[in-house]
This record gives sequence, C-alpha cells and structure tokens, in this order.
Amino acid sequence: MRDVAVIGAGMTRFGKFLDRSMKEITREAVDGALSSAGTDKSKLEVAIVGNAAAGLITGQECIRGQVVLREMGIGGIPIINTENACASSSTAFHMAWLYVASGMYDIALAVGVEKLYHEDKRKSFAAIGAAVDVEWAQEMQAAVATTKGNGERTDQPVPASGAGEKRSMFMDFYAAFARQHMQRYGTTVEQFARIAVKNHYHGSLNPHAQYREVYTLEDILTSPPVAEPLTRLMCSPIGDGAAAAILCSAEKAKQFTTKPVHILASCVSSGGDHEPGEPGLTERVVQQAYKQAGVGPEDLNVIELHDASAPAELVLYEELGLCGPGEGGKLIDARATYFDGPMPVNTSGGLISKGHPIGATGVAQIYEVFTQLRGEAGERQVANPRIGLTENGGGMVKGEAAALAVHVFSV
Amino acid sequence: MRDVAVIGAGMTRFGKFLDRSMKEITREAVDGALSSAGTDKSKLEVAIVGNAAAGLITGQECIRGQVVLREMGIGGIPIINTENACASSSTAFHMAWLYVASGMYDIALAVGVEKLYHEDKRKSFAAIGAAVDVEWAQEMQAAVATTKGNGERTDQPVPASGAGEKRSMFMDFYAAFARQHMQRYGTTVEQFARIAVKNHYHGSLNPHAQYREVYTLEDILTSPPVAEPLTRLMCSPIGDGAAAAILCSAEKAKQFTTKPVHILASCVSSGGDHEPGEPGLTERVVQQAYKQAGVGPEDLNVIELHDASAPAELVLYEELGLCGPGEGGKLIDARATYFDGPMPVNTSGGLISKGHPIGATGVAQIYEVFTQLRGEAGERQVANPRIGLTENGGGMVKGEAAALAVHVFSV
Repeated sequence: MRDVAVIGAGMTRFGKFLDRSMKEITREAVDGALSSAGTDKSKLEVAIVGNAAAGLITGQECIRGQVVLREMGIGGIPIINTENACASSSTAFHMAWLYVASGMYDIALAVGVEKLYHEDKRKSFAAIGAAVDVEWAQEMQAAVATTKGNGERTDQPVPASGAGEKRSMFMDFYAAFARQHMQRYGTTVEQFARIAVKNHYHGSLNPHAQYREVYTLEDILTSPPVAEPLTRLMCSPIGDGAAAAILCSAEKAKQFTTKPVHILASCVSSGGDHEPGEPGLTERVVQQAYKQAGVGPEDLNVIELHDASAPAELVLYEELGLCGPGEGGKLIDARATYFDGPMPVNTSGGLISKGHPIGATGVAQIYEVFTQLRGEAGERQVANPRIGLTENGGGMVKGEAAALAVHVFSV
Repeated sequence: MRDVAVIGAGMTRFGKFLDRSMKEITREAVDGALSSAGTDKSKLEVAIVGNAAAGLITGQECIRGQVVLREMGIGGIPIINTENACASSSTAFHMAWLYVASGMYDIALAVGVEKLYHEDKRKSFAAIGAAVDVEWAQEMQAAVATTKGNGERTDQPVPASGAGEKRSMFMDFYAAFARQHMQRYGTTVEQFARIAVKNHYHGSLNPHAQYREVYTLEDILTSPPVAEPLTRLMCSPIGDGAAAAILCSAEKAKQFTTKPVHILASCVSSGGDHEPGEPGLTERVVQQAYKQAGVGPEDLNVIELHDASAPAELVLYEELGLCGPGEGGKLIDARATYFDGPMPVNTSGGLISKGHPIGATGVAQIYEVFTQLRGEAGERQVANPRIGLTENGGGMVKGEAAALAVHVFSV
C-alpha cells in the first residue's frame, strides 16, 4: 500500500438548513476542499459519497452521490455511494484511501452530506431509527406495548418507532450505558456534564459549529432531561451539513501543497459476536489503528471522537487508552481534554456542539484534525499538534456498533 | 494489484417472495456461495453489501448489510454498504475486488440483495423512481401537469412520481431510445422481440429464473403494451432475490478450488458531461475493461448484460463491439447470441426473464458467468467458455447512466 495524504478539506457550518438542498451544501463543502487543496474538480479521479438518511427524508435513494456531484459538474469518474449510519462518511473516506493506497487512483474525493431536518420531525427520527435493525425495533416495540400498556417508562431502552417519537432510541442506549458506568466506577453526572461544558466551549470557538453558546455546569445539569442521567445539552442535536476531503498519493501531494496531512491508519470494522472479556469493537479497531500507524495513545495531540452523548466521550477516553478503565471522569475533572490541555478531545465542539448530521460527521471530524494539524484552527488551535486521531461509530446491531472507523493522521 | 479470483457464488431463485425476509434470502445466497467455495463464514475478512431500495420499501437504511449478515453470524469484520441503483452489487463486487487486489484482505464476500415486491406496489415504483434525481423528477412532473392537464400521454418520458404510478419511468426512456434506433438504423420491433424470445427461452433453462415460460415472437409482440414499441414481455419485471460471491487472492484460491474464476478486469464509472461524438459511458468503461483484461469482444464466450428492456440488449451488442453500429438487429436475427451460438448473451435469461431485483442483479450476473465458466450451467451450458463479461448499469442523471460496472472473467 502506498502512503496517502489529505491535501484539502472543506465543510459547511452545521445547522438547520430547511431552505438549502443537499446539492447546495455539498457544493459548498467540495468547493472548500478543492480550494484548500489548490486544485479543481477536473483533477478528481474517483469520488465516494457517504449519506445515511436521504432515502427516508427526501426519497433520494440509489444514486445520492451522483445526484449531488453531477449538479456541480463532477462526473465521468467512478462515483460510489457508501452507507454506514453515523459512520457513513468515514467509511467513504476509508474507501477513498483504499483507492489511492492501492495505486488504482492518485486523487480521490470523499464527501459526507446529510440533511436531517425536515418540516415533519417524525421523518428525522425515522431516519435515525433506521440505524438499527428495524424489524427488531418493531418487535421490541410490540413486546413493550403488550407488557407496558400504561405507557410507563421501562428501564430497558425502547426503540423509537419513527412515527410520533420525539427522540432517537440511541439516547436510551447511551443513558443505560452511562448508568452502568456510574454504578461500576462511581462516575458522576457532573463528570458527564463537564464533558458537555468543554465541548460547548470548544464549539463556541468554531465558526462551523451548530451551537456556539458557552454553558456552565449548572446550565448543562438543569437543561431538559432526555433519559436519566442525560440532559439535552449532553446530547448531540439533529442537524444538516456537508464535509469533504481530497486524498492524494503522498508522492503526488507535493505538487499541491507543502502541508499534506498523512494518513497513518485507516481502519473500519463492524460489531460481531465475542466472548465476555474479549475486547469490544472499539478497542479492537483502535488497537489495529495504533498498530497500523505505529503510534500509541500517548502520541496523540488532537482527537475527534464520537460524542453522540457526553457519556460516550467519557467511555471512549478509556477505550482509546487515554486513561485506565473507570478513570474517564478524572480526566475531564482535570480538564486534560480541553484544546489547551495535554490531550485535546473534540476541539471542534464534537457532535454535541458542532452538531451531528450523521452522514457528514465522519469527514467533518477529519476536517477538524486536518485543520488542527495544519495549524489553521484559529481560536481553538492546539499548540503544535503532530499526530491526530478520529473515531466515528455508526448504528447498532445485536448490542454492538454496526460500524466503527478509526483514522490516524500526522504532519 | 494482485490477481483475484472468484472461488464461490450462490443465489436464490428470483421471484416474488412476500413471505421471505431480506435476512432469509441473503442467508440462502451467502450459504450457497460459501458452500460452492468449500469454505465457511469464519474465513471471511471483509463483506460488501449492495442494496438499492430497502430504505424506501422496508424503512431499513444505514446498515442494511450488517442487519442481514449479523443475523447469520457474520460480524467482527468490516461490513460496508454500497448503493449504485441497479449497479449496487456490481459496485459491491468491485469494492470487494479492490480490497483483495490491493493486498489488504485475502478473502472477501460480495452480496447483492433486494426485495422490491411490497403489498403496496406504489412503494416498489417509488423505490425504482429513486434511481434518478428525485428533485428533477418532481420538477418534470410539475411541468407536465401544467402543460398536459388532460392526462394525455406525451412523447417525452415523464418521470414516475412514485405515488400511484404503475410502471417505472425507465421504460419510457428505453422506449424513446428504441424509437431513435429504429429511425436511425431501420431496426424493427420484431428484432427487439426476438431478443425477448431468446432471453425467455434461456430463462426457461435456468432454475433460478423468475419466469420460465417459453414465448413465441407473436406472444412477445402481442403482450400488453408498455410504451411504444415495448411490450410487457420485452421489459424486466419487479422482483426479489439475493446473490453472493466469494473473492480470494489468486494465490490463496488454490487452497479452496481447482476451478477458480479469475477477475481480469473490474471497472466502475459514472456518467459525465462530454462532447457529442465522444464515446458515451458504456463504450468508455467497456474499452477500459477490455484494456485491463487484455481481451477484445472477439474473445468473449459468455456475456451477461443489462437488458432492463430488449432494446437495451440490442444497443449493447453494438456498444460492446459484438457488431458494428446499427447492426444489433442482424445479430439477433442470426441467432448469434443464443447460448449455443457464437456469442452467447444473457444465458441466464437476463433481466427480462431471470428477473431484476435491482440491488441483486450485478452479483447475479457474475453468478451466471462464474457458473458458465466452471461448466456448471446445466441445460443452458455454453460449450467450453473461457472468457466471460458482465455489464451492469444503474440509475440515470442528466441523461446518462449514474453508474456502470463492467467485469471480465476467465478460467
């Protein structure tokens, strides 16, 4: 495999764009990436587009990438559509990497694009609900309806039906997960809330973030409850947005930029059956990425990880090896993961504050690490970062993530 | 790039399976492929799943492959979902090839699965209608509604809205295309019908075909009209089905089989803007595949091509170089493309008779060529074929196919 570098990246601000089409936001992100790479669309040899929800939101299935890219004059090259729930565009980025690393093409475009907002909010939740096995979700719902006809909350996560639901079932999973961590390690709700404080603060420094407000610990704790112990400000919002990256063989990258960002590892996998005590999906893929990159957690200077909720970030500290098992709470108490701390995490604001248009999130994480490693992150710039990592999860089947993508980068 | 071989392939019969789930038909196809490869699921290192319509038919978006494969115990490996309309699973096969050819993995699974039938037929047509730019289709419909309020048929293809339509807009495109060919070259409706006669005859010899009836020329010509000059028996039907293939590095393939089928070329591309007179998408990708494989049309012993309608097959004869421009009609008049003729085409029955569950079609074409090249095609066996080709198109944007995949194989 050849060395591959990112030579350009672009993204829209994340937010609520009822009046902007997928084509329009894709164009903004791709133009940004091409411009940052100092090249133009005629140089692209292959394009991979990640999107998770357009089928259910706009009815556009099948050829989502072609529809958004042909509109801006990109065609006559392979355009491939990938889907892996919230990891759709990190999967697209991985495929783009494979095309270039294999020597098949020199220059590849990876795009993530999503419009989750719809005038009919049920559509948005149905789309998010499609990131689990929908047959299973329907069975679970039927079972709950039978045993709990009185509408009382059960302690088990109940999948959203997508019709009339006001939140994603994923937050119930995260809440159950958070309660386990609290019970096992004494982690507190304040520690989860501190992660949300940090990410909202980072988001306030990022012009691309959906939410740019700064919140106190009390603001976070007293925001509307979602599912105990989660409050709304600890959870990623619904959002629209697009992000794009241009990948190039390291050899050829020199023609475009003096600041290529090298891809040291590109690892994607899916959950599977394993014995208790065996490493879970995240730990397995993270270790694979460290090995492929030849780095360890102590080498990371900037990290974007999948904080769909604050507890997810805390647990990921441990799964990435930034601290020992059960020590995630201490790490945030020490403010270690602030952008000016020793191991900056989610300097973009993360999914919680930058936003989480699911199919766009993976490449948007890469945009942040690319920007940080090039020293172009403005107010939230980490001091002289050399190695960065992105971790992006997607969907759930049989109690484990359906997809997980980890990338490691260096300058 | 390394040499890659197909070591196993399996498929369900295509048909109407309202009572069988996507999980069930996937399992049948994958088990068939594993069994034909003489291996088991524990050996798989990566899986790529192509599906086009489940989002709109069952609500299952995002992680379709994980949902169908985890059910049969396949997990803990990368599972990637690709979508490229009717070329979804040839695209999945191409990605699987890339993983193995690049040296990243040794053994890959490619799957195509689709359930198009639904009790509410409007869902089926909405799904097929998502293989074009749905915004454009809505605009076209609005324009037609304004100018043709009386419901009269216009001569221009009118996109189906997906709500209340009884056929796919693609047949209107094919019909317009057929009329052009008739005008330009004197091709006759009987020649299109003869292609349908052949493919239905081939289908009658294939236990996996959705339709196994033999029809006369008159039967074809007098079947219900779809869009002039197309009749129903010249058009591919709606269908359900799954197909799977196991790819392996040529080096390692020897451990599994004495009859590997080598992949000489794997080419995927998308339509783009080009000047009049420049080769279109199909010709461009076909030439690329011939070059990659080091073969020409004269070397092909078995061909599966995208006969979504009979005129498409006739024109593809010319685009593949089996005959000169405008000579497709003569080729079928001479019965040259029957399974016992000099250049057998669609020995499986093709999309017209074997059926066209869109996301499953690409790998099902490869199943047929694999089976023929191994001499395992029973009553429809071509005599000693050495080189085979598959051509699979998908979707449409701005008047050209959104995706086109061509593969060349040899024993």
